[in-house]
Amino acid sequence: MKEIIGGVTAVQGFTAAGIAAGLKKNGRNDMALVFSDVDAVAAGVFTTNAVKAAPVQRDIEIVKTRKTVRGVVLNAGNANACTGEEGKKADKAMAAAAAEALGVETDDILTCSTGVIGQLLPVGKVTAGAKLLAESLSSEGGDKAAQAIMTTDTYSKQCAVEVKIGGKTVTIGAMTKGSGMIHPNMATMLCVTASDVAMSKELLQEAVRDVVNVSFNMISVDRDTSTNDSYMILANGKAGNPEITEKNADYEAFKEALCYVAVKLAKLMAADGEGATKLLEVTVKNAASEESAKVLSKAVITSNLVKAAVFGSDANWGRIICALGYSGIEFNPEAVDLWVESESGKLKLAENGLATDYSEEFATKILSDKEVTVTADMKMGKYNATAWGCDLTYDYVKINGDYRS
Amino acid sequence: MKEIIGGVTAVQGFTAAGIAAGLKKNGRNDMALVFSDVDAVAAGVFTTNAVKAAPVQRDIEIVKTRKTVRGVVLNAGNANACTGEEGKKADKAMAAAAAEALGVETDDILTCSTGVIGQLLPVGKVTAGAKLLAESLSSEGGDKAAQAIMTTDTYSKQCAVEVKIGGKTVTIGAMTKGSGMIHPNMATMLCVTASDVAMSKELLQEAVRDVVNVSFNMISVDRDTSTNDSYMILANGKAGNPEITEKNADYEAFKEALCYVAVKLAKLMAADGEGATKLLEVTVKNAASEESAKVLSKAVITSNLVKAAVFGSDANWGRIICALGYSGIEFNPEAVDLWVESESGKLKLAENGLATDYSEEFATKILSDKEVTVTADMKMGKYNATAWGCDLTYDYVKINGDYRS
Repeated sequence: MKEIIGGVTAVQGFTAAGIAAGLKKNGRNDMALVFSDVDAVAAGVFTTNAVKAAPVQRDIEIVKTRKTVRGVVLNAGNANACTGEEGKKADKAMAAAAAEALGVETDDILTCSTGVIGQLLPVGKVTAGAKLLAESLSSEGGDKAAQAIMTTDTYSKQCAVEVKIGGKTVTIGAMTKGSGMIHPNMATMLCVTASDVAMSKELLQEAVRDVVNVSFNMISVDRDTSTNDSYMILANGKAGNPEITEKNADYEAFKEALCYVAVKLAKLMAADGEGATKLLEVTVKNAASEESAKVLSKAVITSNLVKAAVFGSDANWGRIICALGYSGIEFNPEAVDLWVESESGKLKLAENGLATDYSEEFATKILSDKEVTVTADMKMGKYNATAWGCDLTYDYVKINGDYRS
Repeated sequence: MKEIIGGVTAVQGFTAAGIAAGLKKNGRNDMALVFSDVDAVAAGVFTTNAVKAAPVQRDIEIVKTRKTVRGVVLNAGNANACTGEEGKKADKAMAAAAAEALGVETDDILTCSTGVIGQLLPVGKVTAGAKLLAESLSSEGGDKAAQAIMTTDTYSKQCAVEVKIGGKTVTIGAMTKGSGMIHPNMATMLCVTASDVAMSKELLQEAVRDVVNVSFNMISVDRDTSTNDSYMILANGKAGNPEITEKNADYEAFKEALCYVAVKLAKLMAADGEGATKLLEVTVKNAASEESAKVLSKAVITSNLVKAAVFGSDANWGRIICALGYSGIEFNPEAVDLWVESESGKLKLAENGLATDYSEEFATKILSDKEVTVTADMKMGKYNATAWGCDLTYDYVKINGDYRS
């Protein structure tokens, strides 16, 4: 497997576009389209929030009932959530406008929205935008599409890899956005992944679920699960590999490559969390189960006190062990070892639950780097998990609270 | 029932003191003692964090095994958590020093600590402090005791009430601290309640558990559950009421009064959360169960995005319904009504899950007040719950992250 330049349009048979439909007040591009020139097997996972945006409700139904689709139309600036029947109509109209211009069925087009909750999606703007997108499709359009779905993201997020499967070169390309808004509102995580792999729908869905569980589901910026989170993959089979229909070596090779892309994008998203200055990676080692390792690592990356300490480059390990402690997982505090690590080095802060004689100065140096890793050894079993978050900063408060200033 | 001036020493038979033992670097009072001149029935509830500070471990054992105690010695500035066997020894030494000076048994004295995690409690300072406290006890010492346990609290927190029980006047007085630290670290909630009620230990424990569940357990400043949280009550029977040994009208009258004191102090604590400028009260109405009403209301007060919106006086109701949505409780988003309310008035923001035609200007006016109430009507059942929190501000980040600046 090797990483290559580009995103969704690095994959053969996929074109994309990004245009301005007038949803963002600053006039930036705010709609994107990703399109496969042949039928593509579709799989996806969506927000667990009881409040689901109109596009999420529609996509869940389509992914469940249809084997293939052709594309995804996305808008930023309006979440189309809590908008009732009108919202559902506007969402479908957006898909229909793209479908008509592309000569495919309405339900061949999935939809994603991100932005303000509770405001009606302006149906005239998005249908005109969808038509313009269809006319603007290009095999170099991946960058524009990735840029168009940004909200308060400070950079666009793409990744592509090539992997040999069944003697053929299979490509996976993805774009994602997260941790932002243009009018302060829910951050939403959207990810569209394209691949030319030939694979059954059932296995594709299973691979997606496994991959999301160790990538996007292991990041947090503010512990607020959006109404719009969507991860979807379209696989058009153009690589010509023998179709993957069982969990063989080909399946594992594809899943590993898909996981590489997902983890890379998830980390970029955490690092670009609203107001963030640092990426915080937390690995919990030797937990009693995989689930407890995940819960423990997520407790640390979501703790406001840990996040604030990371912002202040403060080796406040008491906050880390405290967060492990309230995670709900049973463990022996008097067995836990804690480390911090960065490109500056590695330092053990606590051994068997007690402070080591560490250098505060060196700890501060480590914590001052842009990527900080915390490792907790629970000494209970053999299960590990890694979660990613970011620091809590003045800018987080500014972006989400004091935007009038 | 009526509220009266004072705190723990408003109760007959109780004396208190607050002194400086040198734990706080700024020289402020940092140790307190509350003492009953006769045996007092003891009950308490303690942190659910798997990491429990030395005093918490000791208190749990004493409250479980002894019927009565005589007092509580408290220190601020050092949490005595993650300190191993040395920490347990220092904790016991603090109790023993107070007990010796007071002529009681070591296990007659409960202990509480709050401050930095992972640093050894300076045993010389706290034993000298405990002795000085014993010599400084006074029936007017409640104020000093309440002040001495403050960390980054901006005001001390006390409450006292009188209630007629069995033809006698029963008094309840309490002091609490919360949401602060002197060296940035875990906020800890400590509450010592004194009463002259005559009541069995079993019923007192049950009343405490019920009361804490609707008061202190319903507040949150940062979702970080401390290693040191402690709520304890000492009841010395001096009111002369017939001992309460069953759940009769006397029991209910006492519990109501105890609840009044606890809710008042819990709200003061939330309003004085680190960096807070506003108290946020969230009432969930007509939920399907009491537990789900609690979970829903706590999801809203702990949402960073809701807290930041309250700081910005932004009527961002999408964040509220989103937080309800990810609470894990099932409900119909298209049935929910949402209101905001303050002394400026009341405004319905959403009806049946859709935005009303509300005035943004009036919403901002309501949200600009010091105490803001959000009400969510779930229309599912008959259960209500109220939770209290505060806004997320620049000062929260400053206190916990950027303290070197």
